Amino acid sequence: MKKYVICCLLVVFICSFHVFALTSQMFRRHGGFSLSSDFNYDTFYLDQKIDHFGFQEDGTFKQRYLVADKHWRQPGGPILFYTGNEGDISWFCNNTGFMWDVAGEMQAMLVFAEHRYYGESMPFGPDSYRDSKHLNYLTSEQALADFAVLIQNLKSSRPGAQHSPVIAIGGSYGGMLAAWLRMKYPHVVVGALASSAPIWQFTGMVPCGHFYTIVTQDFAQSGPNCHANIRASWKAIDRLFSTASGRQWLSEELGLCAPFKSQKDLADFKSWLQETWVNLAMVDYPYKADFLQPLPPWPIQAVCKHLRLDSTASDQQLLHGVSQAAKVYYNSTGSSPCLNTSQTATGSLGALGWNYQVRACKARRARRRPSWLRTPRPPLQACTEMVMPMCADGVQDMFEAEEWDFQAFSDECHATFGVRPRANWAASVYGGKDIASHSNIIFSNGGLDPWSSGGVTFNVSDSLVSIVIPEGAHHLDLRHANDLDPPSVRAARVLELGYFWRWIQEAAKAHQTTSTSG
Amino acid sequence: MKKYVICCLLVVFICSFHVFALTSQMFRRHGGFSLSSDFNYDTFYLDQKIDHFGFQEDGTFKQRYLVADKHWRQPGGPILFYTGNEGDISWFCNNTGFMWDVAGEMQAMLVFAEHRYYGESMPFGPDSYRDSKHLNYLTSEQALADFAVLIQNLKSSRPGAQHSPVIAIGGSYGGMLAAWLRMKYPHVVVGALASSAPIWQFTGMVPCGHFYTIVTQDFAQSGPNCHANIRASWKAIDRLFSTASGRQWLSEELGLCAPFKSQKDLADFKSWLQETWVNLAMVDYPYKADFLQPLPPWPIQAVCKHLRLDSTASDQQLLHGVSQAAKVYYNSTGSSPCLNTSQTATGSLGALGWNYQVRACKARRARRRPSWLRTPRPPLQACTEMVMPMCADGVQDMFEAEEWDFQAFSDECHATFGVRPRANWAASVYGGKDIASHSNIIFSNGGLDPWSSGGVTFNVSDSLVSIVIPEGAHHLDLRHANDLDPPSVRAARVLELGYFWRWIQEAAKAHQTTSTSG
Repeated sequence: MKKYVICCLLVVFICSFHVFALTSQMFRRHGGFSLSSDFNYDTFYLDQKIDHFGFQEDGTFKQRYLVADKHWRQPGGPILFYTGNEGDISWFCNNTGFMWDVAGEMQAMLVFAEHRYYGESMPFGPDSYRDSKHLNYLTSEQALADFAVLIQNLKSSRPGAQHSPVIAIGGSYGGMLAAWLRMKYPHVVVGALASSAPIWQFTGMVPCGHFYTIVTQDFAQSGPNCHANIRASWKAIDRLFSTASGRQWLSEELGLCAPFKSQKDLADFKSWLQETWVNLAMVDYPYKADFLQPLPPWPIQAVCKHLRLDSTASDQQLLHGVSQAAKVYYNSTGSSPCLNTSQTATGSLGALGWNYQVRACKARRARRRPSWLRTPRPPLQACTEMVMPMCADGVQDMFEAEEWDFQAFSDECHATFGVRPRANWAASVYGGKDIASHSNIIFSNGGLDPWSSGGVTFNVSDSLVSIVIPEGAHHLDLRHANDLDPPSVRAARVLELGYFWRWIQEAAKAHQTTSTSG
Repeated sequence: MKKYVICCLLVVFICSFHVFALTSQMFRRHGGFSLSSDFNYDTFYLDQKIDHFGFQEDGTFKQRYLVADKHWRQPGGPILFYTGNEGDISWFCNNTGFMWDVAGEMQAMLVFAEHRYYGESMPFGPDSYRDSKHLNYLTSEQALADFAVLIQNLKSSRPGAQHSPVIAIGGSYGGMLAAWLRMKYPHVVVGALASSAPIWQFTGMVPCGHFYTIVTQDFAQSGPNCHANIRASWKAIDRLFSTASGRQWLSEELGLCAPFKSQKDLADFKSWLQETWVNLAMVDYPYKADFLQPLPPWPIQAVCKHLRLDSTASDQQLLHGVSQAAKVYYNSTGSSPCLNTSQTATGSLGALGWNYQVRACKARRARRRPSWLRTPRPPLQACTEMVMPMCADGVQDMFEAEEWDFQAFSDECHATFGVRPRANWAASVYGGKDIASHSNIIFSNGGLDPWSSGGVTFNVSDSLVSIVIPEGAHHLDLRHANDLDPPSVRAARVLELGYFWRWIQEAAKAHQTTSTSG
């Protein structure tokens, strides 16, 4: 049984934020105006307890947060609160165009709160990632407590903010945090927009194969024979890899920077290729983008143009198509001298302050390729509470069959980081599919986004609502309005804004009632 | 400024559970039948994570819980889940008659879950209370997580329990836990009965003087001049204490086991006396009881018979009255050879497994009387998250004026236990007075109970309801039905049962909808 699916998915989840930056760039290229001058904010720091849930560790750290209050109506104007996820908050701030787009109309203050252990918000400074002891406070529960304390601090310390309704907004893991913030701390946020938030991608909640099925569907509908050829490619790769001449041919065909040396490179190559297809599914937008690499509009359609071969194609013909397809993602400009299969994201991520998690991704793969392992960093949350079962069957999807093996996953986590994941904890603490007693959460999902597999894609109640954007990939709605936006995402944003206003009115009414009766 | 109010209140809160046992005894004396044969349960243990909120500490401990399923309708009958508070769970099980009374009618399973760090549920065995490091996991958040995990375990492992609606029930601190369990884990309990739960007795939520005002009112309405004489007694005590002969006279008048030695005994004596009056307010029941000491019906009325003197009374006359009054509480049978001012609860508590917290109470007072200090145990929760400001003004209440001084309290905690309390954390995590978005919680409070000062005594919404029992002391409603129960508590129990049925029907309807749509 192959193990790389697990690693691959960790990489995919942890790196899902990449999509954010993509859109901003796209907008600047395609939009009719530039909003760069609007990205003005002030930076603040709040002393937060390192451990909210224990008193032995009484130290504090400085949580960074950004405030843009140019449009804010004082007193009482709403606060849109971005629940930072795994990355530098200034980067999220600059790449969540939706919030900037609506700030004026809503007369809202924008607040972007950094997630502990990312960006500048390091509980133990440079030692924060040193070992599992220092990483002990990197959990979603601690992050939510940070957000709750920060919001209460904002409301008590900012003149005019005392009665401001606060709406949580986030995407991907940040979307999960936005939803959970409303569930666990409904006294601090009147509602939440959880975009592309796979809150059900946990043990026993959704079929483990859905994720890869959606990736496959994206390819199936983007060109004839496309997903069938990718499905056929794995065995072709096996056959080519079985001889030195086959490996040499494939290395040359791909134009690898470091040619394959032996059969041992097989698993990592497949893992890299699988990540490539998954990343494409997440960034399958209708307009150009140039984040990881410059990508054309509807990049999967561009990829699939190289994968139209019929079933009579030889292994070489098939892998020539795969090679051309991969180069759409990695080298569409032709400027890269060679293809580097050691990464699916470029070094530019490091400049964005994401090196911790990127290194983490590398560290995991490095267990097969030790030469990559320089400064291993644990993807601790994936190995602790964020256990997301994934599997492939090669029938419903275009990947090689692999069952979900929790024990193997747990052993791998333990061997690497000394901690064991708790498969059922997320359900215990966040309620799993039994969330109907909560209120005021929008779950938006893109039909093209593989993470919608773990998303809430139906209305749970009148106030736990789902918005599906059929033409949308990963949290498209959180980005700047774009001339090339499909109607579904435009409609989604209108709906979202409608819910925001409803929550604000409800809060005002409740406040009025309390004031009168009090 | 006197400091003993702080200590006194800690003692009062921590020892508030005493009232439970009281009633059971009372019932057996006054009730028309004995239910002792009904107290049959099985004992189980569940492996719980020592730290639910971090992964560095991956150890487990055995949480004890008791199950009585004689009346349970299988499958699907409801589960009444007692959220154990600070004590041995078998003792709560035997002293929460209300649950036993309704089990048959409701065809319910009774589950009594022990709170970590009490009874047999020790995270580190005999080392659990060794130091603040081992005590780090004694928090309400960890206890709630234990309860949530236990309920999910029960539902998944007990045949027929999968769809059983669970109702949380608790009193005092346990009532706070019941309410918070519904707030934080609404997916595990369909509702909660929080009896005498002072969830608002935290910083900035209620006036700090309410508690003592209610104690005072209890005495004021129980006999002429009663509270005025207690108010006057403090200065009389000061005057008597100022001379050796005065101290000797007072020692003899009280019949002390250990006569006062010096002026230094003054503060502890006043503290002891204040605790006595507070305890009486909590146990002011309409029927006999013999837990701490045998008490007559309406014990404060009995006390006040000795405090009818008018303002012309001398210090000696006044203290003679106080002495007689105190003896109602400590020695109404006349069997005690002498009065021991080192305790307000007898050694029988030790046999009930409560020695940790009792020792803690002693440890705090021991800072003034080091000879008492043998095995100090920290009342960690009072010095961490359960910071409950209290004050007296000597005008609205009958006690000596004392302001709430958080800094002094914090310094005392730090000096004693090495931890500092976090005054605002309870509001941050549990929402303070802003709880309207939650649902299905009954807050019941007794009009005589000083802890109603921090209770929810008005309807927050249609499903966050308040039941006030004017003639009730501390969580009277949770006890066995008694022939001498006032009508208000009978009515309260009927209302509570009505809400239970409503929640169960709502849950059944929701389950049916989910099953149909799923």
